[in-house]
Amino acid sequence: MKIHSVSYLQEAFNKALEDEKIDNKPPELYDPIKYILSIGGKRIRPTMLLMACDLFGGDFREAMPAALAIEMFHNFTLVHDDIMDQAPLRRGKETVYKKWNTNIAILTGDTMMPLAYDFILYINDSKLKDVLKVFNQTAKEVCEGQQFDLNFETSENVTIPQYLEMIRLKTSVLIGGSLKIGGIIAGTSEGNLNKLYLFGINIGLAFQLKDDLLDVYGNEDVFGKQNSGDIVANKKTYLYLKAFELARGNDRKMLKHYFDKEFADNLEKIKAVRKIYDKFKIYQHTESLISFYYEKAMKYLESIDVDQDAKQELRSVAKGLVHRDQ
Amino acid sequence: MKIHSVSYLQEAFNKALEDEKIDNKPPELYDPIKYILSIGGKRIRPTMLLMACDLFGGDFREAMPAALAIEMFHNFTLVHDDIMDQAPLRRGKETVYKKWNTNIAILTGDTMMPLAYDFILYINDSKLKDVLKVFNQTAKEVCEGQQFDLNFETSENVTIPQYLEMIRLKTSVLIGGSLKIGGIIAGTSEGNLNKLYLFGINIGLAFQLKDDLLDVYGNEDVFGKQNSGDIVANKKTYLYLKAFELARGNDRKMLKHYFDKEFADNLEKIKAVRKIYDKFKIYQHTESLISFYYEKAMKYLESIDVDQDAKQELRSVAKGLVHRDQ
Repeated sequence: MKIHSVSYLQEAFNKALEDEKIDNKPPELYDPIKYILSIGGKRIRPTMLLMACDLFGGDFREAMPAALAIEMFHNFTLVHDDIMDQAPLRRGKETVYKKWNTNIAILTGDTMMPLAYDFILYINDSKLKDVLKVFNQTAKEVCEGQQFDLNFETSENVTIPQYLEMIRLKTSVLIGGSLKIGGIIAGTSEGNLNKLYLFGINIGLAFQLKDDLLDVYGNEDVFGKQNSGDIVANKKTYLYLKAFELARGNDRKMLKHYFDKEFADNLEKIKAVRKIYDKFKIYQHTESLISFYYEKAMKYLESIDVDQDAKQELRSVAKGLVHRDQ
Repeated sequence: MKIHSVSYLQEAFNKALEDEKIDNKPPELYDPIKYILSIGGKRIRPTMLLMACDLFGGDFREAMPAALAIEMFHNFTLVHDDIMDQAPLRRGKETVYKKWNTNIAILTGDTMMPLAYDFILYINDSKLKDVLKVFNQTAKEVCEGQQFDLNFETSENVTIPQYLEMIRLKTSVLIGGSLKIGGIIAGTSEGNLNKLYLFGINIGLAFQLKDDLLDVYGNEDVFGKQNSGDIVANKKTYLYLKAFELARGNDRKMLKHYFDKEFADNLEKIKAVRKIYDKFKIYQHTESLISFYYEKAMKYLESIDVDQDAKQELRSVAKGLVHRDQ
């Protein structure tokens, strides 16, 4: 069985997306849609969807509409999340609500939903309902995850399990759902679909934790990303929650103090928080949790009932998502 | 053929909606959804969907999921429109963004989209794709209509045809789409579906123009509705556009002046604008356009190839939408 490379499928996806003719009336509505889709990203989710289809010998072209639907949905969530998080930049470029305005960003996102569902119309009748079911469930859960994330901003008592459940919903289910949809289109068994989904969930958790880790310990010069932005924004990520769990006395008091409000001197704040993180080996704790989810993901991948060689591309993508510097 | 009465189908719909179990985790997300659905409205769109199915001898229970999808979608647009229009009240109650906050209102609306599409999963396989196609198209067009409406707020040169096209998209297509979906589920011909749709489009235009008219000339005491709110908010409805078309010299200058900014004394403004409207018989002009669309709608209804007696309920709903006092 010939398996396509990640880059081949990624390029095929980018080509398909470029070929899509998106409406243009009114331009105030459709220009922002073209803009957010054009500023790119690595197209991780649609590419993994195509890979999952490919893995079982399915025709990835048959899965292309679903991949386009997933990318459209993902970008819709970015447009609305950026309003809610008041984020000025996305992938180094102005966010939609900053470049245009909040109302346009709301409506742009709203329109991307039926556009996503329009792609689903091109899915083979025999698979349409199964795909639609996974797509709907995923979309709801992503919204639930974002709501938990918003809740946590003002909550005093977020626990580590609650945080992990939040990132499962906000980030992982879309990766798991994408893989599962690819598998449905290839026509694989229920058992394989579940393993594929759990592979995605666990790799998604590892991916998000790595994101949190890189925010504090990553390369300072990554384009468009403010270093230690999570600390500045008082985001209670796993790093903070673990530190707060381990810290006692004055360290705990200082952590709480620093994450309680905005500070005039962010550099001082970052330095102080990192010092506490270092004291409690938060880097190592986080890396170890990442490894835990990564290993779990790989176990699910290995247990999928298909030629082991065929899994090489998915193995390498999973590794890339977790062992990255930025 | 036994046709169900409007009130029977309306009640059946309300019962079905009440029986729906909506998730509750996180409550910050789902409570507002239950709230907006509970504050009611006349359920015009879903009821008309059921009536269209009934008209052709279809089983209205088979159309119920589609009716629920339409009502869910409609309420999603209300939640987001109220943010964009900064409306404090909806059906006499606090709007979602006022009662909770903007972020919750954005996410609430977002979640209602996959919830709407979840209902569509219950549609018979043989009709699913046709229904999905109409639903997607309608959803996109409603968003386009809202964008045109937003554009008009800051535009100096809105024409009457542009205004009519805006309300066609923002209001009429959802009525036309609802009717068409009911017809699809009943399995009627393409010809009848088109006539049904155009009946809905024209009755929707008449309905919205009546809404604009009642805003200025309606009962002062209607609960939850501010009288002449469109004049206060400088909304360039058909009434304004027609007056501006007919007025000359000082009248035209004054109209422009009054619709140019906010005024301290709204009562004075309303009185002055109404005086100009009366001078140019705007009430009569609007009533005549309403009649034009109403007659056109009725012609499409009469031309539908089905037992004439069976149309009585739809005739009476159409009449009620256009010949109302509030």
